[in-house]
Amino acid sequence: MDALNFIYKRRSIRKFTDAPVEDALIEQLLRAAMAAPSAMNLKPWRFVVIRDPQRLERLRKALPFARMNAPTAISVCGDVRSLRRMVSENFWQQDCSAATENLLLAASALGLGAVWCGVTPIARLQKAVSAVLELPEGVLPLNLVFIGYPAEEKPARTQYDPALVFLDTYGNPWKPDNL
Amino acid sequence: MDALNFIYKRRSIRKFTDAPVEDALIEQLLRAAMAAPSAMNLKPWRFVVIRDPQRLERLRKALPFARMNAPTAISVCGDVRSLRRMVSENFWQQDCSAATENLLLAASALGLGAVWCGVTPIARLQKAVSAVLELPEGVLPLNLVFIGYPAEEKPARTQYDPALVFLDTYGNPWKPDNL
Repeated sequence: MDALNFIYKRRSIRKFTDAPVEDALIEQLLRAAMAAPSAMNLKPWRFVVIRDPQRLERLRKALPFARMNAPTAISVCGDVRSLRRMVSENFWQQDCSAATENLLLAASALGLGAVWCGVTPIARLQKAVSAVLELPEGVLPLNLVFIGYPAEEKPARTQYDPALVFLDTYGNPWKPDNL
Repeated sequence: MDALNFIYKRRSIRKFTDAPVEDALIEQLLRAAMAAPSAMNLKPWRFVVIRDPQRLERLRKALPFARMNAPTAISVCGDVRSLRRMVSENFWQQDCSAATENLLLAASALGLGAVWCGVTPIARLQKAVSAVLELPEGVLPLNLVFIGYPAEEKPARTQYDPALVFLDTYGNPWKPDNL
């Protein structure tokens, strides 16, 4: 159980102190994100670190559930302009989601708080975020992750539900026999 | 750096020993997966644990890059039949990808090896996997994760590339100033 505590202690943090997040920590988050797997190792991810208070304010107003006072945000984007465009277009959401989960786990491990706000595939939100971040055509914002020092605490948890697990075929209950 | 080693040491493992994976470990992987965040906390994920050698063989034949000899696989699926169907349909791939990344990190932390084989959004592969696992309509297979005890070693790594990071607007290089 302890071996997986780094996973259980990641919680969505929506209240932050005013303290800025050091660039050295942001770099650690980006290193973690880029350790994720990606389809055919194409690494379609791109990252926009947002520090500018005015752009942060515009993003807060554009997104639902995004009225967070975090001093920093990172938008994880997918670049589907690559030579292997078909693969990127098919898998960039999954690749960038794996990278985002790594980023969130790293934030938690480093004592930061973070929350993932969905953007893709909602066209209205994609358009708004793309405008604020001046994304070129073919670079799509998957999400916006707010990051800061946490001003709230939440207990570690899993939402494990064995009713959602099946053995060999859907509907056949999975009953672990050696626990 | 050490604090994030759990992320760097996860690598895609494609060679496995014949040793079976205990149900107790599979349960740990599922607990980790279900600790992921999801849009509106809808938890659209479903899991099919595949132990049956014949079904494993059919899956290996159906998927490209899936000729792995792992004794177990887990298909992470999305159920888009929920009451909040619009949200599930929009975000299930992202939610299930975050859960999958947690599952892969947990496997690595517990001494197992695993590899993520993409299924969605390739219609031909979705159809083949759905047939083998007898998925009902509205439950979609995101992927197939092969799991076993590793028969290969890979060094921890990140593919961090600062050229993929921008500050405030796309194209504006991010230059960390306090490293």
